[in-house]
Amino acid sequence: MKHGDLLVFGASSVVTQVDGVAGDSLVVVDGKIAAVGQERDLRAQWSVKKEQDLSGKLLVPGFVDAHTHPVFAQGRAEEFDWRAQGMDYLEIAKKGGGIYSSVRAVRECEESALLEKVILHFEWMQEKGTVACEAKSGYGLSLDAELKSLRVIAQASAKTGMEVAPTFLGAHMIAEEFRDRPEAYVDLLCEEMLPAVVEEGLAVAADVFIEEGAFSLAQGRRYLECAKDLGLALRIHADQFNELGGVQLAVELGAQSVDHLEALSDAGLEALAMSRKTHAGLLPAVPHFLRQSMNAPARKLLDAEVPYFIATDFNPGSCYTASLPEAAHFARVRMNLTAAEALWGVTAGAADSLGLGGRLGRLAPGFDAKWVALDIPDLHYFGYRFG
Amino acid sequence: MKHGDLLVFGASSVVTQVDGVAGDSLVVVDGKIAAVGQERDLRAQWSVKKEQDLSGKLLVPGFVDAHTHPVFAQGRAEEFDWRAQGMDYLEIAKKGGGIYSSVRAVRECEESALLEKVILHFEWMQEKGTVACEAKSGYGLSLDAELKSLRVIAQASAKTGMEVAPTFLGAHMIAEEFRDRPEAYVDLLCEEMLPAVVEEGLAVAADVFIEEGAFSLAQGRRYLECAKDLGLALRIHADQFNELGGVQLAVELGAQSVDHLEALSDAGLEALAMSRKTHAGLLPAVPHFLRQSMNAPARKLLDAEVPYFIATDFNPGSCYTASLPEAAHFARVRMNLTAAEALWGVTAGAADSLGLGGRLGRLAPGFDAKWVALDIPDLHYFGYRFG
Repeated sequence: MKHGDLLVFGASSVVTQVDGVAGDSLVVVDGKIAAVGQERDLRAQWSVKKEQDLSGKLLVPGFVDAHTHPVFAQGRAEEFDWRAQGMDYLEIAKKGGGIYSSVRAVRECEESALLEKVILHFEWMQEKGTVACEAKSGYGLSLDAELKSLRVIAQASAKTGMEVAPTFLGAHMIAEEFRDRPEAYVDLLCEEMLPAVVEEGLAVAADVFIEEGAFSLAQGRRYLECAKDLGLALRIHADQFNELGGVQLAVELGAQSVDHLEALSDAGLEALAMSRKTHAGLLPAVPHFLRQSMNAPARKLLDAEVPYFIATDFNPGSCYTASLPEAAHFARVRMNLTAAEALWGVTAGAADSLGLGGRLGRLAPGFDAKWVALDIPDLHYFGYRFG
Repeated sequence: MKHGDLLVFGASSVVTQVDGVAGDSLVVVDGKIAAVGQERDLRAQWSVKKEQDLSGKLLVPGFVDAHTHPVFAQGRAEEFDWRAQGMDYLEIAKKGGGIYSSVRAVRECEESALLEKVILHFEWMQEKGTVACEAKSGYGLSLDAELKSLRVIAQASAKTGMEVAPTFLGAHMIAEEFRDRPEAYVDLLCEEMLPAVVEEGLAVAADVFIEEGAFSLAQGRRYLECAKDLGLALRIHADQFNELGGVQLAVELGAQSVDHLEALSDAGLEALAMSRKTHAGLLPAVPHFLRQSMNAPARKLLDAEVPYFIATDFNPGSCYTASLPEAAHFARVRMNLTAAEALWGVTAGAADSLGLGGRLGRLAPGFDAKWVALDIPDLHYFGYRFG
């Protein structure tokens, strides 16, 4: 008889996301899954300290949100009305609203007050089943405010138990005070901010927004090469509104992911299909929130076997939801993904893109004991109900 | 000193939906609001048995969902995949799926099991702040199954405390066994079903789906005139996919509301603007769920001062959400309504359309003490966060 800490039994089924393993129950030892199978078989082999009856719920891996911007001090609901009046993302940015208003708020916010906000945001995610997330800085855009943002991510992770992969996004926008000399801001990023972030061990990846009005392809390349040299993984915002070559750059540099892709061309798709390493980051609720009809060509990406994930892009300006089930719903409605494809995108695919696929996103022996018990009759219902 | 039951104080503000009354607190006597005002003034005038601190939350009237189909036995998640493959609403209906699959399930379902489902659905609504709803039958399409559906609505209302305005929707579709002789089904509706529903006092209104593949304008007129003669209020599904004249008929017969309106023409809009009585029922999450780009011309309707409400249309086939805040979010995103307009649509406008505007949808003296305390900084945030 083997000894375990916990037997979880009575699921309608366990979605393992690993071939050849299934059942209605699992055993946990030391925070890891030790066995998955039928209750009868597990009870015959294991004596456990505790039991938990799932009463027919569907057991799926805990969700992983691989693209979030949780470090902001306040929402931007007033811009939501500006959008109703017809202003677009770039117009709002030019007006001094958009990202810059969040930057001003983060710079002015005390670290302890900012921490409270990020804790709240992580709790919103946890309420919806997210057990791990990628969390970006990027509303600081100065050495101090970016380091503060990253410190707050680490503190909020410790307070809430949310596992976090922190990403430095100093290259979210050219800082306002550098608008007339963008290259000087790239200098600052490469010469001071990236080294300081790495020195303090505050991030595992670097990200840049390659887009008109943000960073050019050349600026993005310089920043990313610098980040790579410092040992950081790379994640990239590209092809959201315009195709500037960010996808090909992501593939060339071996980035973990390239996200948005609403403007992805066939050439970009082909580059991703050749890579098999760089994940396509699908953010299907963003064009909804921005009132755009265009979506990333998810069906084509999946058909080409490009590794992918589905994330919320939780942020105050272009996607104010922290719910991965809601993002999965939008993937089903706007991208015609099946329930199984949507679930993969918020579990195994997301974990893989963060280099955490050996521990998270699956419910099989050796993986972390982190799951969500969904109150739905079967997997078809995942992403069906919304709101 | 006046005596009250409850003082609710400390709101950031109380959205009364009635001109000239405002404050941060209110007093309740016998389940009705007795006074609204500033805490200091109310404390000077009232002695109360209980107090409740709102800690800065925004107090708004309890939500009223004026268009729901909660009497179904199971979801239809598999159709959600059919839609991903490109089938439309009418194609799925012709395939024997759609409404008919819900009809088969309701007919086969024991009354007690159906009651459990409707209780669950009302609880989902209540979790999101809905205090009253219009609830339609319409998945029975036989005398027995329709009466069962309406009885279950009344029982679920009593069990959950949800205030319900029950609507007979025997004219949701031509019952399957009458497909070859639709006029005989209309005979059944007019000669047996409507009289029985009125005899048993199970509904306050009748509704019909006037659309290609459902009921013609002439059939709708016959049914509605019959319902009106029996003393029922009228609500109508019209102009969802095709404009068949249902809007003009609604105005002519003095219907409480005409709902959907994605295909509304300028002539229909003009008829509604002349009426000032028949409400436009806006269901902004439905075209999202059906993957359609078209929306009801809400901005034009509001500019023409047509009375309106915003509802979920909660049902398993074309809108699987029971959340009015989510419907309000879609009204803001897809119809460019302001937060105040969206809130009106799920409170006062909805209550007015049901003839309940003297008691519900507002927080002012004489109205029912039913509110939602929203955890948002100000009204701009209503309908901003989603999921």
